[in-house]
Amino acid sequence: MPLLRSWVESANAPDHPFPLNNLPCGVFSTPDEDPRCGVAIGDFVLDVTALEEEGLLELPGAPLLDVPFWNEVMEAGPEVWAALRTRLIALLAEGSGEKAAVGPHLVARDKVALHLPFLVSEYTDFYAGRNHAFNVGTMFRGPENALPPNWLHIPIGYNGRASSVVVSGTPVRRPWGQVKGPDHAVPAFQPSRRFDIELEMGAVVGTPSQGPVTVAEADAMIFGYVLLNDWSARDIQAWEYQPLGPFQAKATATTISPWIVTRTALEPFRTSTPPREVPLLPHLQEPGPMLYDIALEVGLTPDGGRETIISRTNYAEMYYSAAQQLAHHTTSGCPMNTGDLLGSGTISGPTRESRGSLLELSWGGKEPIPVDGGTRTFIEDGDTLTLRGQCKGDGYTIGFGDCTGQVQATLEDPYARA
Amino acid sequence: MPLLRSWVESANAPDHPFPLNNLPCGVFSTPDEDPRCGVAIGDFVLDVTALEEEGLLELPGAPLLDVPFWNEVMEAGPEVWAALRTRLIALLAEGSGEKAAVGPHLVARDKVALHLPFLVSEYTDFYAGRNHAFNVGTMFRGPENALPPNWLHIPIGYNGRASSVVVSGTPVRRPWGQVKGPDHAVPAFQPSRRFDIELEMGAVVGTPSQGPVTVAEADAMIFGYVLLNDWSARDIQAWEYQPLGPFQAKATATTISPWIVTRTALEPFRTSTPPREVPLLPHLQEPGPMLYDIALEVGLTPDGGRETIISRTNYAEMYYSAAQQLAHHTTSGCPMNTGDLLGSGTISGPTRESRGSLLELSWGGKEPIPVDGGTRTFIEDGDTLTLRGQCKGDGYTIGFGDCTGQVQATLEDPYARA
Repeated sequence: MPLLRSWVESANAPDHPFPLNNLPCGVFSTPDEDPRCGVAIGDFVLDVTALEEEGLLELPGAPLLDVPFWNEVMEAGPEVWAALRTRLIALLAEGSGEKAAVGPHLVARDKVALHLPFLVSEYTDFYAGRNHAFNVGTMFRGPENALPPNWLHIPIGYNGRASSVVVSGTPVRRPWGQVKGPDHAVPAFQPSRRFDIELEMGAVVGTPSQGPVTVAEADAMIFGYVLLNDWSARDIQAWEYQPLGPFQAKATATTISPWIVTRTALEPFRTSTPPREVPLLPHLQEPGPMLYDIALEVGLTPDGGRETIISRTNYAEMYYSAAQQLAHHTTSGCPMNTGDLLGSGTISGPTRESRGSLLELSWGGKEPIPVDGGTRTFIEDGDTLTLRGQCKGDGYTIGFGDCTGQVQATLEDPYARA
Repeated sequence: MPLLRSWVESANAPDHPFPLNNLPCGVFSTPDEDPRCGVAIGDFVLDVTALEEEGLLELPGAPLLDVPFWNEVMEAGPEVWAALRTRLIALLAEGSGEKAAVGPHLVARDKVALHLPFLVSEYTDFYAGRNHAFNVGTMFRGPENALPPNWLHIPIGYNGRASSVVVSGTPVRRPWGQVKGPDHAVPAFQPSRRFDIELEMGAVVGTPSQGPVTVAEADAMIFGYVLLNDWSARDIQAWEYQPLGPFQAKATATTISPWIVTRTALEPFRTSTPPREVPLLPHLQEPGPMLYDIALEVGLTPDGGRETIISRTNYAEMYYSAAQQLAHHTTSGCPMNTGDLLGSGTISGPTRESRGSLLELSWGGKEPIPVDGGTRTFIEDGDTLTLRGQCKGDGYTIGFGDCTGQVQATLEDPYARA
């Protein structure tokens, strides 16, 4: 598919993240207007809540955009998603006869504040990157036990904390927690000293399910994708994670990018999971390509310093797709709901430079990596961590918008109250 | 505190679960009325939604009961909870002058259907029973490694799946899942053969928090308690739970009793956690008694058969209280919300007859237990499992209402569609 040209000129630049081909879904506010639904186009946000109010969208089941989140559209299902996209393309395409009606609802993107684009129902985080699982397993359990016996048979995941999900730009405060080093007899309660990122993609569930669904059905349930940073306190995690998995180590914050890039916009970039090392059971096999070729990078900017790109990788490195993860998630009969968020698991490539966490990049803190003005093993106070993603099409780019957060110094004493 | 006498005569019987001292919060419907909020009193449900509509409750911030769930009251906080209780006691007490106004809003309890009493925001399940952790640890890892090193220092928990929570009486379908026996080279996808219960209490979070809270603050955030059955597929759990904890094994269903028994009603039954085997860090120490003396039992009724009580135990067997669990839950800064549900973990006593799961009762399936018409290791299709709980006061009883569910045969093939 070539670039779809728009009368919003900025959207036609081949490197612009938000061409007419993209139309990602967000929630924005201005000093004068409360949060409402918008779609990014070029350097603008199109106020689709206003368009619906004025009867310009003609969506079945409307109103669906009269709330400051996309859940009602997401729940309405693929036919409504397609109708909305078709209509927006008609309104915004070069030569559209409705430019005069639409134009007043474009808001300069640098004038808006962005909010969480959807209400997160529940959040599940997976562990489905082959290189990440091997790297972390090697550090925690040694190379001979790196990959758990079940890993090649099911996408291992755990339930995360939906209340921890914040939109890009939200500051993240270094957590306190209980930790115990190997040389200590008893644990201590202290600020995390090994605070980390995890570079992930998040799949956003659109339509709900009751009972088990196939991989193909799961794929059709997904409304779109976001970038996701699963902030992780490695020292807290090491002490707490056995036997029931990560808990407080992952509950401080989970940052997502502000725009849901729809599955439809990503269709041209579908690619296959790598060859199976052992065959999957039939219910987890994919009927077609269900990953996406999304180039990813992580930048670290010290407070007052310049950004260093510390990792470059690709979503296609995953061993399991979001559709496989979602299908597995339903095998027990677990009901899935509109707004469920599925983290892919950390996306690490096979090389050192393509690792998706500081834990891996610094190999457990033993090999500091260079950043502007010094080195890093884990995050220092004031550091800003930014995930970026893009797909390169035929004369256009699909961008996600930055997924960023600055780490603030911990509270002196979290139990002291003002 | 003695029995508070009510003009609803049935509420005054010393063994009745719903005296005026209790006033548990539920949601009910009748053939003529949609779901609405009610409070159990004797053999009746008092339609508090109607009382509020008629201006009889005088709640600050009203309307709070115009929705079919208790979340708005829960979020309103302890002053509103106290005002509601005080007002209901005034309306229902023996000698009340408002009997004529209130009487028409009593609905016979055997005529109503009960629904989930609150919208479950997120669900966390703990592992905080000393005997259960030791029993299960012994079976999974041997007696020398039974208790994980962190267990005596933090209440170990994992995030569960809120979408799996159902109200008592909802049938539960035996799940399928991926399992692998020790004698098999590859896993299989099949119905669970080791489907089990876990006898737990659930704490219902009333007021939300941002940032760490103390144990005393956590206690004050709790609106009330329910019985909770954390249905568990042990064969699925054994294969999936390493390294990130239980996932699909616990996602089929989680049944709760239909009435939230308020913390206030339970005050007379407060009791302390057992002596600490090792000292807790200060932020997890309790300033007073935070468990409750709640006698618990589990009944198993084969399809068409009679009930056998297979376990009798007490909530006071827990090593950690819900307040300690909630405080720990916030240490990382994890935001807690109105409607969060915290499962206590399986409540097993020290004796064989007081174990809170079939896994423990049958010692991993090796020692079948007698039930009507035969024996059981794990649940068979058609079995009904019922949890019950009560506190014995001075001439009265505080009951929770049954927490029950019948296990249905699995679907022949979960991927076959009609």
